[in-house]
Amino acid sequence: MRNKTARKLPEKLLHGADYNPEQWLDCPEILEEDIKLMKKAGINCVSLGIFSWSQLELDDGRYSFEWMEDIIEKLYQNHIYTILATPTGAIPPWLSAAHEEVLQVNEYGVRNYAGNRHNFCPGSPVMRRKMRAIDSKLSQKFGQHPGVIAWHISNEYGGNGRAADCHCPYCQEEFRKWLQEKYGTLENLNKAWWTTFWSHSYTDWSQIHSPSERGENVLHGLKLDWKRFVSHQLLDFAKEEIAAVREYSDRPVTTNMMGFFKPLNYFEWGKEFDFISWDNYPDWHSEENEFRVAAEAAAAHSLMRGLKKAPFLMMESTPSMVNWRPVNTLKRPGMHSLSSLQAIAHGSDSVQYFQWRKSRGSCEKFHGAAVDHKNGENTRVFGDVCEVGKRLRNISEYVWGTCSHAKIAMIFDWENWWAVEDVCGVEKLDYKNLFCKYFYPFWEMGVNVDIQNMEGDFSDYQIIIAPYNYMYQKGYADKIREFVKNGGCYVTTCWSGEADDTDLCFLQAHPLRDVLGIRTEETDACGAAWDNQVSYCGVSYQVTGLRGIIHRETAEVKAYYEKDFYKGFPALTRNAYGKGCAYYIAAETEIAFLKKFYQNLLEEEGAGAGFAGKLPEGVTVSCRNDEKKKLWFLQNYNRREAVVILYKKYFDIELQKDVEGTIEMQPFSCDILLEEPGS
Amino acid sequence: MRNKTARKLPEKLLHGADYNPEQWLDCPEILEEDIKLMKKAGINCVSLGIFSWSQLELDDGRYSFEWMEDIIEKLYQNHIYTILATPTGAIPPWLSAAHEEVLQVNEYGVRNYAGNRHNFCPGSPVMRRKMRAIDSKLSQKFGQHPGVIAWHISNEYGGNGRAADCHCPYCQEEFRKWLQEKYGTLENLNKAWWTTFWSHSYTDWSQIHSPSERGENVLHGLKLDWKRFVSHQLLDFAKEEIAAVREYSDRPVTTNMMGFFKPLNYFEWGKEFDFISWDNYPDWHSEENEFRVAAEAAAAHSLMRGLKKAPFLMMESTPSMVNWRPVNTLKRPGMHSLSSLQAIAHGSDSVQYFQWRKSRGSCEKFHGAAVDHKNGENTRVFGDVCEVGKRLRNISEYVWGTCSHAKIAMIFDWENWWAVEDVCGVEKLDYKNLFCKYFYPFWEMGVNVDIQNMEGDFSDYQIIIAPYNYMYQKGYADKIREFVKNGGCYVTTCWSGEADDTDLCFLQAHPLRDVLGIRTEETDACGAAWDNQVSYCGVSYQVTGLRGIIHRETAEVKAYYEKDFYKGFPALTRNAYGKGCAYYIAAETEIAFLKKFYQNLLEEEGAGAGFAGKLPEGVTVSCRNDEKKKLWFLQNYNRREAVVILYKKYFDIELQKDVEGTIEMQPFSCDILLEEPGS
Amino acid sequence: MRNKTARKLPEKLLHGADYNPEQWLDCPEILEEDIKLMKKAGINCVSLGIFSWSQLELDDGRYSFEWMEDIIEKLYQNHIYTILATPTGAIPPWLSAAHEEVLQVNEYGVRNYAGNRHNFCPGSPVMRRKMRAIDSKLSQKFGQHPGVIAWHISNEYGGNGRAADCHCPYCQEEFRKWLQEKYGTLENLNKAWWTTFWSHSYTDWSQIHSPSERGENVLHGLKLDWKRFVSHQLLDFAKEEIAAVREYSDRPVTTNMMGFFKPLNYFEWGKEFDFISWDNYPDWHSEENEFRVAAEAAAAHSLMRGLKKAPFLMMESTPSMVNWRPVNTLKRPGMHSLSSLQAIAHGSDSVQYFQWRKSRGSCEKFHGAAVDHKNGENTRVFGDVCEVGKRLRNISEYVWGTCSHAKIAMIFDWENWWAVEDVCGVEKLDYKNLFCKYFYPFWEMGVNVDIQNMEGDFSDYQIIIAPYNYMYQKGYADKIREFVKNGGCYVTTCWSGEADDTDLCFLQAHPLRDVLGIRTEETDACGAAWDNQVSYCGVSYQVTGLRGIIHRETAEVKAYYEKDFYKGFPALTRNAYGKGCAYYIAAETEIAFLKKFYQNLLEEEGAGAGFAGKLPEGVTVSCRNDEKKKLWFLQNYNRREAVVILYKKYFDIELQKDVEGTIEMQPFSCDILLEEPGS
Repeated sequence: MRNKTARKLPEKLLHGADYNPEQWLDCPEILEEDIKLMKKAGINCVSLGIFSWSQLELDDGRYSFEWMEDIIEKLYQNHIYTILATPTGAIPPWLSAAHEEVLQVNEYGVRNYAGNRHNFCPGSPVMRRKMRAIDSKLSQKFGQHPGVIAWHISNEYGGNGRAADCHCPYCQEEFRKWLQEKYGTLENLNKAWWTTFWSHSYTDWSQIHSPSERGENVLHGLKLDWKRFVSHQLLDFAKEEIAAVREYSDRPVTTNMMGFFKPLNYFEWGKEFDFISWDNYPDWHSEENEFRVAAEAAAAHSLMRGLKKAPFLMMESTPSMVNWRPVNTLKRPGMHSLSSLQAIAHGSDSVQYFQWRKSRGSCEKFHGAAVDHKNGENTRVFGDVCEVGKRLRNISEYVWGTCSHAKIAMIFDWENWWAVEDVCGVEKLDYKNLFCKYFYPFWEMGVNVDIQNMEGDFSDYQIIIAPYNYMYQKGYADKIREFVKNGGCYVTTCWSGEADDTDLCFLQAHPLRDVLGIRTEETDACGAAWDNQVSYCGVSYQVTGLRGIIHRETAEVKAYYEKDFYKGFPALTRNAYGKGCAYYIAAETEIAFLKKFYQNLLEEEGAGAGFAGKLPEGVTVSCRNDEKKKLWFLQNYNRREAVVILYKKYFDIELQKDVEGTIEMQPFSCDILLEEPGS
Repeated sequence: MRNKTARKLPEKLLHGADYNPEQWLDCPEILEEDIKLMKKAGINCVSLGIFSWSQLELDDGRYSFEWMEDIIEKLYQNHIYTILATPTGAIPPWLSAAHEEVLQVNEYGVRNYAGNRHNFCPGSPVMRRKMRAIDSKLSQKFGQHPGVIAWHISNEYGGNGRAADCHCPYCQEEFRKWLQEKYGTLENLNKAWWTTFWSHSYTDWSQIHSPSERGENVLHGLKLDWKRFVSHQLLDFAKEEIAAVREYSDRPVTTNMMGFFKPLNYFEWGKEFDFISWDNYPDWHSEENEFRVAAEAAAAHSLMRGLKKAPFLMMESTPSMVNWRPVNTLKRPGMHSLSSLQAIAHGSDSVQYFQWRKSRGSCEKFHGAAVDHKNGENTRVFGDVCEVGKRLRNISEYVWGTCSHAKIAMIFDWENWWAVEDVCGVEKLDYKNLFCKYFYPFWEMGVNVDIQNMEGDFSDYQIIIAPYNYMYQKGYADKIREFVKNGGCYVTTCWSGEADDTDLCFLQAHPLRDVLGIRTEETDACGAAWDNQVSYCGVSYQVTGLRGIIHRETAEVKAYYEKDFYKGFPALTRNAYGKGCAYYIAAETEIAFLKKFYQNLLEEEGAGAGFAGKLPEGVTVSCRNDEKKKLWFLQNYNRREAVVILYKKYFDIELQKDVEGTIEMQPFSCDILLEEPGS
Repeated sequence: MRNKTARKLPEKLLHGADYNPEQWLDCPEILEEDIKLMKKAGINCVSLGIFSWSQLELDDGRYSFEWMEDIIEKLYQNHIYTILATPTGAIPPWLSAAHEEVLQVNEYGVRNYAGNRHNFCPGSPVMRRKMRAIDSKLSQKFGQHPGVIAWHISNEYGGNGRAADCHCPYCQEEFRKWLQEKYGTLENLNKAWWTTFWSHSYTDWSQIHSPSERGENVLHGLKLDWKRFVSHQLLDFAKEEIAAVREYSDRPVTTNMMGFFKPLNYFEWGKEFDFISWDNYPDWHSEENEFRVAAEAAAAHSLMRGLKKAPFLMMESTPSMVNWRPVNTLKRPGMHSLSSLQAIAHGSDSVQYFQWRKSRGSCEKFHGAAVDHKNGENTRVFGDVCEVGKRLRNISEYVWGTCSHAKIAMIFDWENWWAVEDVCGVEKLDYKNLFCKYFYPFWEMGVNVDIQNMEGDFSDYQIIIAPYNYMYQKGYADKIREFVKNGGCYVTTCWSGEADDTDLCFLQAHPLRDVLGIRTEETDACGAAWDNQVSYCGVSYQVTGLRGIIHRETAEVKAYYEKDFYKGFPALTRNAYGKGCAYYIAAETEIAFLKKFYQNLLEEEGAGAGFAGKLPEGVTVSCRNDEKKKLWFLQNYNRREAVVILYKKYFDIELQKDVEGTIEMQPFSCDILLEEPGS
């Protein structure tokens, strides 16, 4: 029913911000100024009502919607849309005071006191009841208002900086039920979790308890299932919120995700929402240059786009600095436009901010905002916001309706994330960072990449890259086998295919032994004393992490170790299989190796970027297209000017003129070039 | 009533120690030796009864004062005064066993077990009752004894190494009452704490709970008020102790403070005691040289002196090493005298030790003491103690009755300390260290400085320096405006004047915009990639911390940034205002900048040290004076000899001779020079 | 009765592994392959039943021994012995679900949830009852089986990675009873713990509570007694296990210890078992070379041998890597044999592994094993295991029945460990690391050393080395006095003889003042700013740790400080006393000083290694002998070849030929040379 009945978002790029007028209701001159400055800045939508529960339900059952009605109405009159939030991001003191059960219990069995945010127990019946009541009231009141264009369900679910999970008796009970449904019998569960180890065999469902430092913390199967349950349970809560607002409203629903946020399996979540939105806070200016951070932001955008293979909204970003890092650096001139357009380049149909106006008190008062405490419109930052507003308005007609498309998919899988970082052995791995390292050279070459989990539909892709795919979901090996058989190219690394979906090790052989054409034996992790290199295409590359020790079977050896007792052993293999082929990267190396390998791979597979130009270091390009045109977003992340050489003529949609030969790009800048068929 | 009736301390310098004869009651030969060695060392007072509750009240209501009577009497007969402590520094096991409520509850809601020290709940009615009983009994018994010269109320309040606060139900209730008195209505409180943020609006006083990692930890207004309450509540306890001893005694009361001790607002505390005393433990010998540590010790002495703008007692110091640092280094020869005289130089009328004799067991048995476990008087340390005794006796007549006076005040404010280090944004600041950095050049130049909080009386001062004054107390801005208008010179820094006394940001403008003649816009915090310098008087100085970005209005620009997008923006401004002027230091820089700036400032204001001599590096001077004379304490903190050039003749009060020309100072030494009017 | 009736172990070297067939009962082909591969690898024993409680007692009182019977029987038929474990290493979920009291309570008073291992309360009556039941059932069933050669009581007692102690009410009560027995009266206890300090005098036994961060953590006497009690209480539990299996079995009992495992006083433990066994996991390949790690492993073997001055079993070791270090490096070729023979060299009569086969799931699935998940016998590691099996079989007849003997004893005392690392003062010391530093030069020189605690019988030794013997057990000083009087040579260091066995400082003088011929005064701990050296035999050695400041009385000064205020003070003294002498090392220095000092000492005392050869760096030798022969285990820990020069002819028992002149040793290799009397 959902996707059939939901309206669509307006057909233009959005420029908006989280708006908290409830903090200023006694300052009408502030609310007045807000509207004035929003119009000046080209703001065409706001996110309203996030954290407003206290103001909407003053006490149990005593609702107060008038202020919100006024705001929505006034915004609407000024041509500013409202994305309306359900207020469950934080619960009011009166609720937890009356019903302690709505508060989370931590892994030590201790219930939190009231406070903070995202502080509710998703298993509490009282919490569910009160959530349904306020959500459906809100929907009834505003769900058909012409100014309201979408629902913003709660806020950054799970994002309380402590723990996304609750260990209260309700949640224990729900967990056990979930396990019963999954495993049917205790025997199955005992087998899947390998509970004969350390005498952990359960004889009654009631013996099962969530993982805890106080108790069970070694049964990987339990820990993995708990993480699945936590994501599932919170999603179940979200689905009940969705149902509540849909009772009276046909507006599309979203929730603001957080990119690489480990506790929630966003691929599962994406299915339940009408469109994806997310909050984007790259750590700009924190390193010697911006390249790694920019590539990671590109990966996060691509991940969010991949959830539905569709455009999304960037629901939050900061116009300047954040306030929660150890060091909070101001965005340098140009960076606000550049990072906003990076989002657009990778599939966002909006640039939205947290926050419109800095709050006066409490813990986010120094977070960046379009409007600061003291200077009104008279700030550098407000100027930057106005500029973005203007640019979005100018490019909207070109951009809206296009999306990014890729021939290459990289596998990023939440369940693998949980499993591979919980491994006890070899050495601690940071899956996200490793993944981003394997993504980086594509970003550098300006090659669009889709990101999918193991359950994705791979039929559109030519190449699949699956780094550190330690755990294989059921059916994954067969799917890859088919993919390669049919002509696909599969690239994977050491420490993949080790365990199944309950973290039981595969016996006998690597599940893709035939496809990869190798036999795996050992995995070495070393300190500095065991320096090693890999030889590839005549060049030596430094080994920087794990060292898989493997034996070639049907594969060709493309690179080998230079030292140690596995000197001469394969470090990279290629195996022809069916109509396709499969690569195995046994050694973790410096990134230069990856770049060289990817270049060779793209050449071999004919899967290059497609942009007719030469990019200097720190300049990349991303493409959005529809059936009629391509838009190339050229991005210069250098702190100085850079020159791009064009091999053909493009049309700069902002300058509204043809460009050819060379383009001189300003520091931290983005140029958008149109390529029309045949041009 | 208090200050009217309290007797005065004896009119001489004191030399004393914490004395714990109750640990040795079964060793009469030890007690005998104590008296003998005290006399040898020139000890003229001891602090008695700290932690003696177990020995004074053997079980509930069963008191035992005889041993103490013997000790006080014997000391008195030997001309050694007693400063008598109330024994609440630690509670006896029988008390907590019978009344669990006397034990503290931590922020997680868990009550401590018995043990440790400073372990009582200040809100417990039982604790109050038992405290009053033992204190008044003690007072009745000894409060008029001729040997007893003062009361030492409890010991290092709050100093248990864990937390000064208690979160038990009694304390929650007291906190709520305190808030009710402060705010009157919940509406006021909600507004002051900005509780609309994250839906935290309280609808009943009972919903308010102390800050906790388990609960509320983001509402800065709540956190700040809790810190105020904790200091207030413990002071209230102390006041009840004071009242109890005053019932039967006219001796002056003090409590041993701990210098820069964050939990207790000593400016508030100072008002309630007849004189100030404190425990001084600089980390000598821990760095490449002693200068920074010496300057910090000087700042701490000045802070303690500032509480009453009067001489104080240094109630504790170690004759050698402490035992609680990661590395506990012995005082090098000379350092014991030097650091003892440093205290005198800055306003102490005593040198007292923790401890007279090393205890045989428990956790302070390896803390330095005048007398060790094995060697009696036959130690280097005992020799050092004797030397200090002798010097104090010799200089007493010159020193007693003088005090330090200053034309410069620096603002150090506990409430600002709490607020500025709780800020979420920019970057973590260490207020005490930053303050000491701004104090350092004065120490180096031998310029006396007073330290006051924002509520101080500034009428005596020519210059006020207020670094990182993030939070402005009510009325502070107006007071400074008057100060400058009337000819004062005010110096402040970036990250000042940001928030009011409930941590709400100021809106519209910096509260001293007119006085400073600038408009503040942004504050940048950067990593190593954004190296910058400030240009001042033709020299480049390294930027080392925050970078305020400000706009000149009526001010002159005295220094500017050399790089980045704020290149050319003001880094130091000066604004003439009324008869005075105000400086704003926008950039945090290396200390060399501060030195240069202060030199210029002192010259401009005619507020130099006044010592007629040239000080080599590592040698400083401090002045005590009365109406008739000045005493200059020349201190050499170098590990080698140093030469001071004198521009006029002084009289060395220990050598009892005139000195002129040059003085060769021994490593770690202090010379005391008398300057008489007209000399 | 015990030692009289217990059978002996088989008279040959054992080669074995922990075996967990209960994890594979549904995979008969795996069990089949196990037997086949064990025979191939020369495995002649397995440790069975560790952690099998869940499989042996399916639910309260429902036992299931059939599977175990089958396994023991099949192993026996294949000439593989069983060392049978009691299964108390982890408790089954049904037990803790029914009786919460069996779970440990931590120092915060919080009871653990079920999970992990070594998770039971040793004071729980229910736990004791269920343990006795299963243990005696097992014994009745298998205690006379011809395949069963020994009992493996529980597993790595106390080794749960959290805490070995339980703070539940039962344990509090047991602790108080233990104290009552020890001290008789509270007065004695108060005196021993110096409870007058900080008002801690107990007036009722019930006031005493175990140490806790929540409560008492400063009373060193209490903390020390608690550690004693914890070791005692767990041993009491073990003794009850021993009694239970002895009911029906005459097989010898052991428990697998963990070398330098701080919570358990293994010298006390050793007395209760028929033979010693332990689990050995050196961190091979983690440093620039293997020398320090090899020496520490040698020290650990020597410690375990010293518990009974007899051969022991190495019950566990890894055939490859472990899985619980931050970085888990594979054993390089040669290292598995070398480290296995190192164990033999130092007194082990076995090489046993954890684990035979990698488990499929849970937290040790990536721990090294003889057999991996995928490759059966077709791995490097399995080859290494087979090689060790072959070598053990070959050398067994030579080695079995010999043992290591030494003229030198080093003192390593658990109670001192507890006390010296709990000291509050000077600086944090790592007793084990310091001890190993003092052991290292002996290892390097190939000199056998015994390790004993202060209660050892020293009559066999010529030299005793006692580093950092902070605490003196009752009677220890007198014992040493006698030892030296009778011609022994005693070497001790600074920070020894400070406190008695309740951690009360000695008064008056160092307890060995006469023997050492010195007076101790101060102990200095310094940062980098106080660089110093010691001059010894004309060479300067760097000071690296504590600096004792002492005065020579009757001793000769052999080395002195070169700098600081104790320049010229003694850094090493020698005192002739009776027929012997005593050295005092006042300064902690670089290891080169120790080497030089030891060389001089061994020469003076005529106590050299006895091996007729010259060892290059990284090559050492250890000796096992009986009355007829000596076996020299030459070990090369270098990553490259090394040449040993022999001064006489030896017989290589593996090559079965004489060797003389030089031996070229392979990287990571061991040669075993026989020396027969008169050879």
